[in-house]
Amino acid sequence: MKNIGINGYGTIGKRVADAVSAQDDMKIVGVTKRSPDFEAQMAVKKGYDLYLSAPEKESQFEEAGIEVSGTADELFEKLDLVVDCTPGGIGSQNKTDIYEKIGLKAIFEGGEDHDAIGSSFNAEANYESNIGKDYVRVVSCNTTGLCRTLKPVYDLAGIKKVRAVMVRRAADPNDAKKGPINAIVPTTEVPSHHGPDVQTIIPDVTVITMALMVPTTLMHTHNIMVELENNVTTDDVLDAFKEAYRVLPIQKSLKLGSTAEIMEYAKDLGRSRGNMYEIPVWEESVNVEDGELFYMQAVHQESDVVPENVDAIRAMLELEDDGEKSIIKTNKAMGIL
Amino acid sequence: MKNIGINGYGTIGKRVADAVSAQDDMKIVGVTKRSPDFEAQMAVKKGYDLYLSAPEKESQFEEAGIEVSGTADELFEKLDLVVDCTPGGIGSQNKTDIYEKIGLKAIFEGGEDHDAIGSSFNAEANYESNIGKDYVRVVSCNTTGLCRTLKPVYDLAGIKKVRAVMVRRAADPNDAKKGPINAIVPTTEVPSHHGPDVQTIIPDVTVITMALMVPTTLMHTHNIMVELENNVTTDDVLDAFKEAYRVLPIQKSLKLGSTAEIMEYAKDLGRSRGNMYEIPVWEESVNVEDGELFYMQAVHQESDVVPENVDAIRAMLELEDDGEKSIIKTNKAMGIL
Amino acid sequence: MKNIGINGYGTIGKRVADAVSAQDDMKIVGVTKRSPDFEAQMAVKKGYDLYLSAPEKESQFEEAGIEVSGTADELFEKLDLVVDCTPGGIGSQNKTDIYEKIGLKAIFEGGEDHDAIGSSFNAEANYESNIGKDYVRVVSCNTTGLCRTLKPVYDLAGIKKVRAVMVRRAADPNDAKKGPINAIVPTTEVPSHHGPDVQTIIPDVTVITMALMVPTTLMHTHNIMVELENNVTTDDVLDAFKEAYRVLPIQKSLKLGSTAEIMEYAKDLGRSRGNMYEIPVWEESVNVEDGELFYMQAVHQESDVVPENVDAIRAMLELEDDGEKSIIKTNKAMGIL
Amino acid sequence: MKNIGINGYGTIGKRVADAVSAQDDMKIVGVTKRSPDFEAQMAVKKGYDLYLSAPEKESQFEEAGIEVSGTADELFEKLDLVVDCTPGGIGSQNKTDIYEKIGLKAIFEGGEDHDAIGSSFNAEANYESNIGKDYVRVVSCNTTGLCRTLKPVYDLAGIKKVRAVMVRRAADPNDAKKGPINAIVPTTEVPSHHGPDVQTIIPDVTVITMALMVPTTLMHTHNIMVELENNVTTDDVLDAFKEAYRVLPIQKSLKLGSTAEIMEYAKDLGRSRGNMYEIPVWEESVNVEDGELFYMQAVHQESDVVPENVDAIRAMLELEDDGEKSIIKTNKAMGIL
Repeated sequence: MKNIGINGYGTIGKRVADAVSAQDDMKIVGVTKRSPDFEAQMAVKKGYDLYLSAPEKESQFEEAGIEVSGTADELFEKLDLVVDCTPGGIGSQNKTDIYEKIGLKAIFEGGEDHDAIGSSFNAEANYESNIGKDYVRVVSCNTTGLCRTLKPVYDLAGIKKVRAVMVRRAADPNDAKKGPINAIVPTTEVPSHHGPDVQTIIPDVTVITMALMVPTTLMHTHNIMVELENNVTTDDVLDAFKEAYRVLPIQKSLKLGSTAEIMEYAKDLGRSRGNMYEIPVWEESVNVEDGELFYMQAVHQESDVVPENVDAIRAMLELEDDGEKSIIKTNKAMGIL
Repeated sequence: MKNIGINGYGTIGKRVADAVSAQDDMKIVGVTKRSPDFEAQMAVKKGYDLYLSAPEKESQFEEAGIEVSGTADELFEKLDLVVDCTPGGIGSQNKTDIYEKIGLKAIFEGGEDHDAIGSSFNAEANYESNIGKDYVRVVSCNTTGLCRTLKPVYDLAGIKKVRAVMVRRAADPNDAKKGPINAIVPTTEVPSHHGPDVQTIIPDVTVITMALMVPTTLMHTHNIMVELENNVTTDDVLDAFKEAYRVLPIQKSLKLGSTAEIMEYAKDLGRSRGNMYEIPVWEESVNVEDGELFYMQAVHQESDVVPENVDAIRAMLELEDDGEKSIIKTNKAMGIL
Repeated sequence: MKNIGINGYGTIGKRVADAVSAQDDMKIVGVTKRSPDFEAQMAVKKGYDLYLSAPEKESQFEEAGIEVSGTADELFEKLDLVVDCTPGGIGSQNKTDIYEKIGLKAIFEGGEDHDAIGSSFNAEANYESNIGKDYVRVVSCNTTGLCRTLKPVYDLAGIKKVRAVMVRRAADPNDAKKGPINAIVPTTEVPSHHGPDVQTIIPDVTVITMALMVPTTLMHTHNIMVELENNVTTDDVLDAFKEAYRVLPIQKSLKLGSTAEIMEYAKDLGRSRGNMYEIPVWEESVNVEDGELFYMQAVHQESDVVPENVDAIRAMLELEDDGEKSIIKTNKAMGIL
Repeated sequence: MKNIGINGYGTIGKRVADAVSAQDDMKIVGVTKRSPDFEAQMAVKKGYDLYLSAPEKESQFEEAGIEVSGTADELFEKLDLVVDCTPGGIGSQNKTDIYEKIGLKAIFEGGEDHDAIGSSFNAEANYESNIGKDYVRVVSCNTTGLCRTLKPVYDLAGIKKVRAVMVRRAADPNDAKKGPINAIVPTTEVPSHHGPDVQTIIPDVTVITMALMVPTTLMHTHNIMVELENNVTTDDVLDAFKEAYRVLPIQKSLKLGSTAEIMEYAKDLGRSRGNMYEIPVWEESVNVEDGELFYMQAVHQESDVVPENVDAIRAMLELEDDGEKSIIKTNKAMGIL
């Protein structure tokens, strides 16, 4: 039973905490928090010991009646591995300032640069190459989404070139400050950052992306066009998606014609916090024409990377040598289809 | 163990089914569905027997691979009580066309007219007057929200007059067809329908409402001004809200400053489908000035009426004579704070 | 022909510039700008001389190819009056730091405090009391909206108490940064700031407001309930609204059932920038019941105060002693109905 | 001075009416309307004679106080050409049921099928081939947008293949009924209809499109990737866009980073109804890499086709043989940059 901590108990951190707790070979020893908001309150109610990233704010926690177990530094001493879910850029600093100094293994999220961490992770694509590593970065929600479906296509048919347009939700569902309310905001640099990022996982594949933000909070969508090396049919691709562990082809008869209905489906599945860990692919959008594959998928930003974090822990702590076995174990514990 | 059925397994129906299943004195015998969409699929996966409202569509269910246990009429024969969650107006027809003919007790939702059903229900306000009744209407999400907070105020201080402006979310979260995308749509009839509807529950209280729709899918909000009979303080009112069983005063320090954050809080509470059964009231908005009480509350349209349905079953089937005991039992089983 | 300048050529400033230019007794001598964005470009294209609020940025304007006529200080020397449309709070500083020192009359907008400026203005309510004044504040878009309809009601029937719920658009139409995308954000302080602000214009009237922000960019709406002193009918009120100069009762047959359709109507009216200078009141929402008046109105934040600025200029520079004559003159020049 | 009528005075029809009125070789003789809403009221106020598509509703117009000049059939007799702006599919019926029978030339909009009309039109791409034609279809807003920028690229560098992802606003700005409020709705058929439609204008070019709807009302955006035949630079493409008559490259320094700001720019340009007749292309998004061109553009659905209708009239009535001269004449009269 390995001792795991979460540094930054926010949108991703709280989900990773729950996912780790659902496993039988690792447990949460504590989580860190900066301010005594509702997430701090709920962490304690759920039974996670709370440690302070900013010890000078201890009195604020006291006033709010939220019990504190110590400082972040005290937590780190108890851990086999920390999952760093702090905002983008802070993780890299923590690596050099803290984790390397005390010799603590750490996982980072997609907001950190690949080069600052040294190794990037996606369970189905490169589990084995991360076994025993000290510092690993789980790629971003969007890169995870691309890797999940591109890897099976790559294995099936080879890939000459990928073009993808990423239509991004502009804010998290619980964010009432960010907009736009009524506009489309293009990211006018082409290619945007997802292309090179996919190559940290699947090195041979050229991915060109364009991205824009739209006024919705639920899911990103990816509109993907893949020039294939070899001749395959639409059904071959659908079969490959069905066999992949964390891809969820969506039948037309289920009437899940938008991201809103997919989020409702996740709630109906009984998922904690309405999470959709899989990458849903609209089945009827999958189409091979003239050697090019087209498909549309959605990405639940808060949760698709969560099971990847669990698998990364297992690889780094050498709890399991076979990536597929880890994936199956993680999926079962989390109720992934 | 009473046998309950759900006629209309949709947004409300599926939540009532889960709430009934969580009790120890009643169980779900079956649910009805018209088309083989994802909700039908999930009903069967969750273990609810599925019956057809439109038996002529049986082949569609077969094609979709969704198992069917019979027709709605066959289900009704097995029941002690049916909860009718069909769209507004259909319930009243079902009452005369079906339930009265076969002598089946039935609960209806707020989309039906009070006069068509004969009795309206809110657990804290009038449980006892519905004991043993055959046909009862659980009032709408908005009327339930108003009754939840107005009843304690009425008991505490008396009410001369209530003025409320209801700011309504325009569509359900899983509805990708309805708008507006970027507009405010006033309901230009004043008073709108909630005023008289509250009087079906608290007869002496005059409630005048104005309503408008805004482009959000999460929760309604109510902006309430109450002219009081007697002199009380802001703290008196807060205490009354804290003592009420399904009202949830929200402390400012929790940083739940919008409906978005409250919905995130519901997810963090581990609530099934992110439900918020209580009526959240922003504590710092509660204010008594010159004999008038002001406050702001939110209403989770999909779920605030769900525990009321459970209590209504208990009253109608005489499983419990004391409303407060039923409320406590329901709340405990559903994890209501 | 009086010489007017605009300090801050943004959302309000550019509209006031056009409105002043449409009059025959005043003209725009120049406008100020901080950065060389599209508004700066368009100011020059429209023929307004451009002066720099931040002279150190001159090279940026040069690079962008936008012609500059001097510094803001140089502009101020040429003026009979400046309209200060800088962001809230800056205007009061400019008053003490600049305008008072050089003896320049100035108008401020609703973002400044009444006390900092000394006099507040609404043409139909208190034109005459601002004649010859040096520093005048045109009240905010929301207060202007309230005054426009409350003044005729006050004159007609007397007012005991006003309760209003202000449903505010959360961002300007050209703002792609502010949210919320999908939430309602209550302003939990009651009463909010509009009540006392109305009293700077109509001193005897008690106005209690509650406010919330919703995800739309088009118009605010006001939901208003007025306890009347004297007995009048709904038709009396409608007649008073029709006689008011800048109130626009909207007939139901026109099918203008939302703020979106009203904005389209403004475009169809041929209004510059789609402005709606009048306060539209949905006719069928106007209703007197038991001595209380109910109605719903909308406010076009960018433009309702614009004609007020023109009238304020006329009062302060003593171009016209009769407020009604100024209103008629302004309206005619601007195409106000 | 040719006599032109508008059948269907709605979103497009009213804009075409104004554009025709701005020319010196054609005029509006009358417009048709089905119901007495605000657009009917404004048509009369603007001086357009109003004719009834549904003569049986004459009394409704009388009640609303809107003057009527006769029936649609009476209007058609007075015309040299009718612009049919009725909802998609009605135009084709009108062609066979009415216009062909009375020998009236007619223009149709993009909601009609190419095959039903026989000829499709874009001024810069194929003006000359439509000279003297009786029935011509102005292609849709999206196809017009694609043709405007693809034609110059085709002429400059040749095109192997175009891939485009169309991110569509889900509703018109004045539509308060359609959603989604908070969702992305993919069009899961690939390729969607714009590809073949571009070929009705530029026959040799293969265009593959994917489309989705997002919760905004302002503009569509197109994310375009073009495999080029010949080697050109980014600057070559920018120059070609600058030379095109109805393409508007947007410099980064203007800070027009979203569709919201572009719509504000159109208002600042003094455009009637805030129209943006040109196709704005974000300059910094234009990029040639490895023989492939990338760029992002926006489309103002209500107005980009409007000048095309004017040019189509001129071609069909043989008022001008040279397409470029017609474009220049139209642009000048409409204030197109």
